[in-house]
Amino acid sequence: MSIADSATTSGAPARRGRPGYDREGLLAVAVQLFNEQGYDATSVADLAKRLGLTKSALYHHFSSKEELLAVALEAALGGLEAVLDEPGAREGAASDRLRHVLTGATDVLVAQLPAVTLLLRVRGNSAVEQAALERRRVFDHRVTGLVAEAQAEGSVRDDVDAAVAARLLFGMINSVVEWYRPGGSVDGDRLGADIVRIALDGLRTA
Amino acid sequence: MSIADSATTSGAPARRGRPGYDREGLLAVAVQLFNEQGYDATSVADLAKRLGLTKSALYHHFSSKEELLAVALEAALGGLEAVLDEPGAREGAASDRLRHVLTGATDVLVAQLPAVTLLLRVRGNSAVEQAALERRRVFDHRVTGLVAEAQAEGSVRDDVDAAVAARLLFGMINSVVEWYRPGGSVDGDRLGADIVRIALDGLRTA
Repeated sequence: MSIADSATTSGAPARRGRPGYDREGLLAVAVQLFNEQGYDATSVADLAKRLGLTKSALYHHFSSKEELLAVALEAALGGLEAVLDEPGAREGAASDRLRHVLTGATDVLVAQLPAVTLLLRVRGNSAVEQAALERRRVFDHRVTGLVAEAQAEGSVRDDVDAAVAARLLFGMINSVVEWYRPGGSVDGDRLGADIVRIALDGLRTA
Repeated sequence: MSIADSATTSGAPARRGRPGYDREGLLAVAVQLFNEQGYDATSVADLAKRLGLTKSALYHHFSSKEELLAVALEAALGGLEAVLDEPGAREGAASDRLRHVLTGATDVLVAQLPAVTLLLRVRGNSAVEQAALERRRVFDHRVTGLVAEAQAEGSVRDDVDAAVAARLLFGMINSVVEWYRPGGSVDGDRLGADIVRIALDGLRTA
């Protein structure tokens, strides 16, 4: 996500007619602020201040704080749901499809880190948040179904409950938002493969 | 943690001389409220209201909101650190010690669910929180060291970075606070074994 006019990032008010952010750049700053201080605790005035915009300039791009939340959550959820609809998640052995979903979901998380971080902190305090939680439940249910299919085909152990396994796998994936930082010492492109190594093959060699 | 006088849980003010909670029961209610609405957003007045106590009755047990936080974080961190000091974490093959730590940490999390939940939400906004984050870092560092030892002895695969593996393993363990509820359909006593199965042996059968 790019910021159209980097001169406004200093926090100086943009008083000329044309706002310094495009819609995408504005959204990126909003999501960052929501993640820093919490969505509920962030006012439109806080957001305008961080952006160096007037509230009316902000409303030129988004009708409400909730619209910003909805667009950000759509980016995260839409990305994750798209993985489940890819051919690699729909065709072939269930264990291969599970591998595809684990890798793909990790890649979405790394690519959409701020939006997924926001999604994982949603607690259901509004209709937009409730809808996001419901989509997360449907996603989890589909992953559980995939684990159960892999157990039924005999390629995944069945001494761990499929729903528990799905939650633990996504616990591992979702934890990435807590400690991964782009440009740091950990290579984000490798994380999906690392998670698959642990989840499917296990750490132990002998 | 028990509540000494269940009559006060209705929220009715306790106006008689003797407060309705012992120290432990009061702490349990405080931790629950912190987890519900956030530590920073919870005032001593909120807490007194939830407990049905006057603020002065509350201060009879705890000197400040921060003392409540400190005691709760000590229960969580002390429990986790104790696992690393058990004989099973200090003697024998590194892969067996790692198994002991994963199981023991999961058991602490299940037993101390509210306190560990609070610990995992700490963001470092005070000296107490900073100290807790530092102890978490030391804990993570010791787990990373154990993974590296197991890699050096050849019992754990070395194509995943030890620090990344430690973070992913504890991502799986810590996720339990997000979805495990005592008395629900998932058996908390089995979770440690399930996590070890996935982490060390992997889900795949073939």
